[in-house]
Amino acid sequence: MKYVIFAIITFLLGPVASMAQRPPSLSSPEVHADNRITFKYFSKKAQKVMVSGEFLTAPQAMIRDTSSIWSVTVGPVKPDIYPYAFTVDSVQLADPSNTQIFTNERFKRSIVEIPGKTPLVHSLQNVPHGKISYRYYQSKTLGTTRQMLVYTPPGFKPNGTKKYPVLYLIHGGSDTEETWTKVGRANFIADNLISQGKAIEMIIVMPYGNVRPAPMADFTKDVVSDIIPFVESNYPVLTDSKHRAIAGFSVGGGQTLNIGLTNTDKFAYICSYAPYTATEEFQKNFSNYAPDANKINSQLKLFTISVGTDDFLYESVKKNIAMFEDKKIRVKSYIVLGGHTWMNCKQYLATTLQEIFKN
Amino acid sequence: MKYVIFAIITFLLGPVASMAQRPPSLSSPEVHADNRITFKYFSKKAQKVMVSGEFLTAPQAMIRDTSSIWSVTVGPVKPDIYPYAFTVDSVQLADPSNTQIFTNERFKRSIVEIPGKTPLVHSLQNVPHGKISYRYYQSKTLGTTRQMLVYTPPGFKPNGTKKYPVLYLIHGGSDTEETWTKVGRANFIADNLISQGKAIEMIIVMPYGNVRPAPMADFTKDVVSDIIPFVESNYPVLTDSKHRAIAGFSVGGGQTLNIGLTNTDKFAYICSYAPYTATEEFQKNFSNYAPDANKINSQLKLFTISVGTDDFLYESVKKNIAMFEDKKIRVKSYIVLGGHTWMNCKQYLATTLQEIFKN
Repeated sequence: MKYVIFAIITFLLGPVASMAQRPPSLSSPEVHADNRITFKYFSKKAQKVMVSGEFLTAPQAMIRDTSSIWSVTVGPVKPDIYPYAFTVDSVQLADPSNTQIFTNERFKRSIVEIPGKTPLVHSLQNVPHGKISYRYYQSKTLGTTRQMLVYTPPGFKPNGTKKYPVLYLIHGGSDTEETWTKVGRANFIADNLISQGKAIEMIIVMPYGNVRPAPMADFTKDVVSDIIPFVESNYPVLTDSKHRAIAGFSVGGGQTLNIGLTNTDKFAYICSYAPYTATEEFQKNFSNYAPDANKINSQLKLFTISVGTDDFLYESVKKNIAMFEDKKIRVKSYIVLGGHTWMNCKQYLATTLQEIFKN
Repeated sequence: MKYVIFAIITFLLGPVASMAQRPPSLSSPEVHADNRITFKYFSKKAQKVMVSGEFLTAPQAMIRDTSSIWSVTVGPVKPDIYPYAFTVDSVQLADPSNTQIFTNERFKRSIVEIPGKTPLVHSLQNVPHGKISYRYYQSKTLGTTRQMLVYTPPGFKPNGTKKYPVLYLIHGGSDTEETWTKVGRANFIADNLISQGKAIEMIIVMPYGNVRPAPMADFTKDVVSDIIPFVESNYPVLTDSKHRAIAGFSVGGGQTLNIGLTNTDKFAYICSYAPYTATEEFQKNFSNYAPDANKINSQLKLFTISVGTDDFLYESVKKNIAMFEDKKIRVKSYIVLGGHTWMNCKQYLATTLQEIFKN
């Protein structure tokens, strides 16, 4: 009862009372033991509230109760982490009660995790945890200070004798440098695979791949001339190509091909996830591609391209794979079920982390 | 032209085409050299779009153009960092085009920075940058793994001989462990003050202060029994009370008083910003408060309470200050202009950082 009174006082006097109309505190989403999910939204004025998400085949209507709380319970849903959003009348928005945000430049969505009975590779488990650091570097290429995220593994010693291999990991089209951790859970995937002995200890660098209005090709320069030197002067890392990998999703998957295959002396591992390649830079690099395949095949320890059969880029990616095969470049293709989603993308990363730096 | 075509293709084939109805890429907010700000929002169906923000006395209507882009230019606005939101018909939401989010459990707002001509203390400046690390710790008190953010200063050596003082810094009511960096820019404020020699090098620990449904008092236990031991076993820090400070805003300002004044053997610096004290825990600690003032005054090197004259808690905070004075506890009050805002809160922090660990 005291708690209820406190909650009411908090509601009335809440710290942003100056912006008023503060909604009541709701618990949304609530994930139930049977893998169903309840979503809630408060609105006195809305005519229609829907929830859409990559676990639903169609948006579901939410029902208003007498206290203007709209809700719906869906599922059971297959254990995974999914983006979702509410549509209130004509407006799509992130769930106001959920702090887990899909970091993106063009929309705001929320994230829900259905843990399931057996911990998934991307779940927070009771294992030693690495650390994500938010770092700033000076990009001479782009003339600005930019942010990158750096994962260091459990037990990392910045000044010890052990030196680490580095994976450079690039987000999708309108994502940001935070999307690989906030949505892709790259840190938990690495923690879990390292603790199981399935991946070796590595540093994962997650830069911000959007350089607009500069030409996209400037990101290749930024990686090679600014990001790699920053990492190599600030972290104890191995600096030969066999200890450097590059991977990325969607637009970042296209950037991975551009950066990696024009720098096979620098990256022995290139892993492209559902690459988006309808870009000037890809056109320039690969429309008249005449590689020394023997040389490249001897430089690369691993070159993979992953895609799902429901991905809207599936046909395009198959053409990319065929093109590389036609040029006699050794490429391993991973064709799986699923679409152009972060659910798939997390699996691509989990597969990759178990393969790189091992030969 | 090629860029325009690429932009159109990206829009048509965008990575989340599966969720369709993707809006065009907008640049919002745009901050102009004369400190005016242009906001944009895309909607074909909205009847009315408004922008509200802590730089406006009233919400401003946005005007729709023939391509369904709603916009308005406001200001000039006094240089600072402000939260703002759009209201589309009845729905308040964060700006979909802006990745700078006000991290909060109960609403989604966006952040806009008006840099001004002279760099402000919270701005990204060309100085050496510290690092923010996202860490996980096991809370025995709360029985879960929780996240905290840890700022380490420029030049920080984790295994060097130098040992650092630590500030524990707590967010407001429905904020999260990210709000002090994402909105409060604690890291840039520290970087700038350290580089100017105005603050000494320190570690800043930003925990997550919300422990509901556990009683709020459990956060005091969590800080003392779980967070401090985690920090002291993972960072090279000084562990006497003269090298430990606690500060917090709003609900976190109340927690600061509860945690600090019941542990004056552990914290020699207590800085409370616009404290919200209508809580059971505060009531329990201070309604029959009978302190040994001489002892406490000799333990504390600095005890400050800050508030703005337009703060909705102003009267309440004045009573808190009077209560401590009445009990002969030496308290320094900072009464400034302004309301219960993060603009004020950043100033409280900037003042505090220049005072702690100096005597």
